[in-house]
Amino acid sequence: MITRMSSLFLRTLREDPADAEVPSHKLLVRAGYVRRVAPGGYSWLPLGLRVLRNVEQIVREEMDAIGAQEIQFPALLPKEPYEATNRWTEYGPNLFRLKDRKNADFLLAPTHEEMFTLMVKGEYSSYKDYPVTLYQIQNKFRDEARPRAGILRGREFLMKDSYSFDLTDEGLSESYRAHRDAYIKIFDRLGLDYVIVAATSGAMGGSASEEFLAVAETGEDTFVRSSESGFAANVEAVVTPAPPAQSVEDKPAAVVHDTPDTPTIASLVDVVNKLDLGRTFTAADTLKNVLVKTRLPGAKDWEFLGIGLPGDREVDEKRLEAALEPAEVVLLTETDFRNNPHLVKGYIGPKALLANGVKYLVDPRVVTGTAWVTGADQDGKHVVDLVCGRDFTPDGTIDVAEVRAGDPSPDGKGVLEAARGIEIGHIFQLGRKYADAFKLDALGADSKPVRITMGSYGVGVSRLVAVLAEQNFDERGLVWPRNVAPYDVHLVVAGKDETLLAGGEKLAAELHEQGLNVVLDDRKASPGVKFADAELVGVPTILVVGRGLANGVVEIKDRRTGDREEIPVETAVEHLVKVVRG
Amino acid sequence: MITRMSSLFLRTLREDPADAEVPSHKLLVRAGYVRRVAPGGYSWLPLGLRVLRNVEQIVREEMDAIGAQEIQFPALLPKEPYEATNRWTEYGPNLFRLKDRKNADFLLAPTHEEMFTLMVKGEYSSYKDYPVTLYQIQNKFRDEARPRAGILRGREFLMKDSYSFDLTDEGLSESYRAHRDAYIKIFDRLGLDYVIVAATSGAMGGSASEEFLAVAETGEDTFVRSSESGFAANVEAVVTPAPPAQSVEDKPAAVVHDTPDTPTIASLVDVVNKLDLGRTFTAADTLKNVLVKTRLPGAKDWEFLGIGLPGDREVDEKRLEAALEPAEVVLLTETDFRNNPHLVKGYIGPKALLANGVKYLVDPRVVTGTAWVTGADQDGKHVVDLVCGRDFTPDGTIDVAEVRAGDPSPDGKGVLEAARGIEIGHIFQLGRKYADAFKLDALGADSKPVRITMGSYGVGVSRLVAVLAEQNFDERGLVWPRNVAPYDVHLVVAGKDETLLAGGEKLAAELHEQGLNVVLDDRKASPGVKFADAELVGVPTILVVGRGLANGVVEIKDRRTGDREEIPVETAVEHLVKVVRG
Repeated sequence: MITRMSSLFLRTLREDPADAEVPSHKLLVRAGYVRRVAPGGYSWLPLGLRVLRNVEQIVREEMDAIGAQEIQFPALLPKEPYEATNRWTEYGPNLFRLKDRKNADFLLAPTHEEMFTLMVKGEYSSYKDYPVTLYQIQNKFRDEARPRAGILRGREFLMKDSYSFDLTDEGLSESYRAHRDAYIKIFDRLGLDYVIVAATSGAMGGSASEEFLAVAETGEDTFVRSSESGFAANVEAVVTPAPPAQSVEDKPAAVVHDTPDTPTIASLVDVVNKLDLGRTFTAADTLKNVLVKTRLPGAKDWEFLGIGLPGDREVDEKRLEAALEPAEVVLLTETDFRNNPHLVKGYIGPKALLANGVKYLVDPRVVTGTAWVTGADQDGKHVVDLVCGRDFTPDGTIDVAEVRAGDPSPDGKGVLEAARGIEIGHIFQLGRKYADAFKLDALGADSKPVRITMGSYGVGVSRLVAVLAEQNFDERGLVWPRNVAPYDVHLVVAGKDETLLAGGEKLAAELHEQGLNVVLDDRKASPGVKFADAELVGVPTILVVGRGLANGVVEIKDRRTGDREEIPVETAVEHLVKVVRG
Repeated sequence: MITRMSSLFLRTLREDPADAEVPSHKLLVRAGYVRRVAPGGYSWLPLGLRVLRNVEQIVREEMDAIGAQEIQFPALLPKEPYEATNRWTEYGPNLFRLKDRKNADFLLAPTHEEMFTLMVKGEYSSYKDYPVTLYQIQNKFRDEARPRAGILRGREFLMKDSYSFDLTDEGLSESYRAHRDAYIKIFDRLGLDYVIVAATSGAMGGSASEEFLAVAETGEDTFVRSSESGFAANVEAVVTPAPPAQSVEDKPAAVVHDTPDTPTIASLVDVVNKLDLGRTFTAADTLKNVLVKTRLPGAKDWEFLGIGLPGDREVDEKRLEAALEPAEVVLLTETDFRNNPHLVKGYIGPKALLANGVKYLVDPRVVTGTAWVTGADQDGKHVVDLVCGRDFTPDGTIDVAEVRAGDPSPDGKGVLEAARGIEIGHIFQLGRKYADAFKLDALGADSKPVRITMGSYGVGVSRLVAVLAEQNFDERGLVWPRNVAPYDVHLVVAGKDETLLAGGEKLAAELHEQGLNVVLDDRKASPGVKFADAELVGVPTILVVGRGLANGVVEIKDRRTGDREEIPVETAVEHLVKVVRG
């Protein structure tokens, strides 16, 4: 096809939009790909819609290739199925809720687990029907608290969500693996720089779950990766390697010291170092005891939990929540301390916790034989050389201390580096949660019901357009990967001479005949304006028909490398077909 | 591509769904194309989605062909633009309204006039930018009072809506014409039986507007068409031909008669016929005077209006509303009659109306020289031979009497027949309503602002799938037109013999290689079940690989005609390519 800039619905902007902070947002608006119409609501202009459709098609092809079947649900759904799973409530303010004219409750679907489960239940009954994988590519709605960065985090966005339905756990693993491979193909085809991170450590029985993160400084998600290996993980999923246990024999005896006015670890270290014990202590030698209380879903009472970790580290809230999931967790209140006088705030040590039946879990670094400066359970007193395995025995470990750059990589290779990314895909072994909620069974070969197990897999299709922009731009504008670019060739007629325009039209027609998509800049604007727009719009190959045409040559410019090449006009089409088709 | 029935997400049903009344609804559910998930909310299963995409693609191609440019707006929109045009209120209960987490008002867009207008205003400024036509293909939401007939009238549905923006009325006419032609191409390509009807007569200054109605007994819209010509129109748009005026000279004088107990036209005709006037009267000889009151938007007071029409016809409410638009219209109340004693209920005649300054409009059939039996403005009295143009002179005509089968066609050819249809497209010269609301101006060549004029054009894309089903089925199931069918060939392996399946797989692979889309029934089911499903699903060409294969022949069946043909297996692929490509 040939699109003429003279009639294309496109007005590029010289200035960045005032509300834009990240490069993709700035450039997609400036280059006329998207326009904001509401908080978190964007319109797609012709160029943007072309890129979106190209990305969507790549996702669709790889889904079809693993035998997933495309269907489509409404976005506007009745409350009832989401009440059955309690998600009507659980979603909280992220869910758009509304009423119809009969006052019935509806929602705008943020995801469709319930509907897919009910759909399969409605159609399938025998074990012979399984496995099956279904998907849709559809606009989703989420009432984000802070829509941001243009189409990177909107309230209405295009998503591919798929669900696998299997008879066995092994089947689920296979479906999961097929999706993982398909996602790798999708993101590789898009030429993205991305990592696959374990979403949770699975320590507390969580199901397998991985996230695909596109590496981007502007990303909202933090992750860590090894300086030397391919290891990458969400901080929630980092497993701290435990050092080897030590002998308890050669350790000095535990001694209680007066340590008044030591409200912080730093002040404690100062005071201890002034005790003249013949050693220098650092924060890493102290054992900080953090008191929280937890409550499992449905439980009435809160349970106290003491967490011991080296004093140079804080508890990471996300890691704590992930480790204790599905339990709720909060810090103790002043009332809790008043009601439990054995908890001497600021001077809590392992001994009082263990003596009073408070569950006590420690950081993996707190192994047998390690000696610590910690609370002595008396106001203004700490104990030095309290040895794990000799003076106290924790109830177990809990891996919730903050992860820091420079920590050893869990795979033993190199150290961890902090990085930022944007979630572009998520694969998740749901298990039987939804099948249980809706009693999705297959009649087995032995005529007994088999409860189905499910996987859930998502790709943010519209978000990918922003992510591609985020990874493909320079100071002059966007630089699209070839297989998602809105056009194959951006043909600039550089000059107002009628013969130039005629030459450009002729070349465009020939390229079109070869099946290439051409945007032809036939405007009356100056060559400078046209070149700037071409760089901003970011079609990978720019063909310039200018003064050289009189001498039988045109110029081909590679948008990404900036390389220019003059070639005879007679061979230009053949040459470009090769460039485009690779 | 090859889809195997053994894994296709499809379960056909033997029984019609309980809630289905029209054939398309019954068959699309039974054949596994759609499933209901909410009132007016349907999911698309794999087969249905394929047909929907095929229809969508035909619409897209014809829009692109007239230079319309595809964009896409969110469905979730802020209230403000719709307040500016008052449609936030005007839409009434048909609009889905909701609030976001910050309590801001949003709506689910039923159409996007406001957004398109604002979009063009945001990008374009000069007269050189125009004309432009934009479109989108997108899910729309309307809170229909009575969602019905499956996807025929849903609350969430796929629609193509486009808008043209022109500098002049002539430009708008051209854009309108281009859309009209494109719609004809779309509906012709879909092989639909349809008519184009004027939506309103335009008598009261309404803008040009036409509807495309697919002819269907189950349609909600009524229209009339000529028994002899191509004339078709909404009843609102039918212009009643006026008979020639007659001489008033040769008419008998008007005489008042006692006509007690004549509450109905029938009783009046009876009484008059018993007066022994030497003639026989029918209801068509009486002049019924209907009193209404009207009020223009913004006006404070109601104005009375008398409508005189032949007594054998009722006033058609839709025609009345269309004729008086944008004024409101209601019948007089008892209070109105009490307050206006000159209006003698049941005996109202033209004379009292005209004498008391009540505007009096008559049916086009009431021409000069026609003599009528009508009210004498006294209780229990009628006048006979009251002659128009001699005894009374109306203030004008109003064409609001019911249109009946057998009425002469307005184009003078044949008589009118009543028919039913389903609206599949609507083209409408909006004019400057939205441009005025948002001050959409172009800077003219003379540096003066030019107010833009708009056209609005819609096609119900998902509805078309139902309409196609409605026009293409028989007692055994669906019969898709070739260019929207989910597959090109339905290959039935008729038998459980392994060699049959191998033969089927081989043929499917060869057809696939030729670029054909094949659904291969490789199930273990009986040939009878497979044939029944093939007929129900409605792929236009059925290829049967059965016992004949041993003798080197396969059978090709035309789903629509039922014609069967045995052909040698070696030439089957070549033959089918010809059948499919035409």
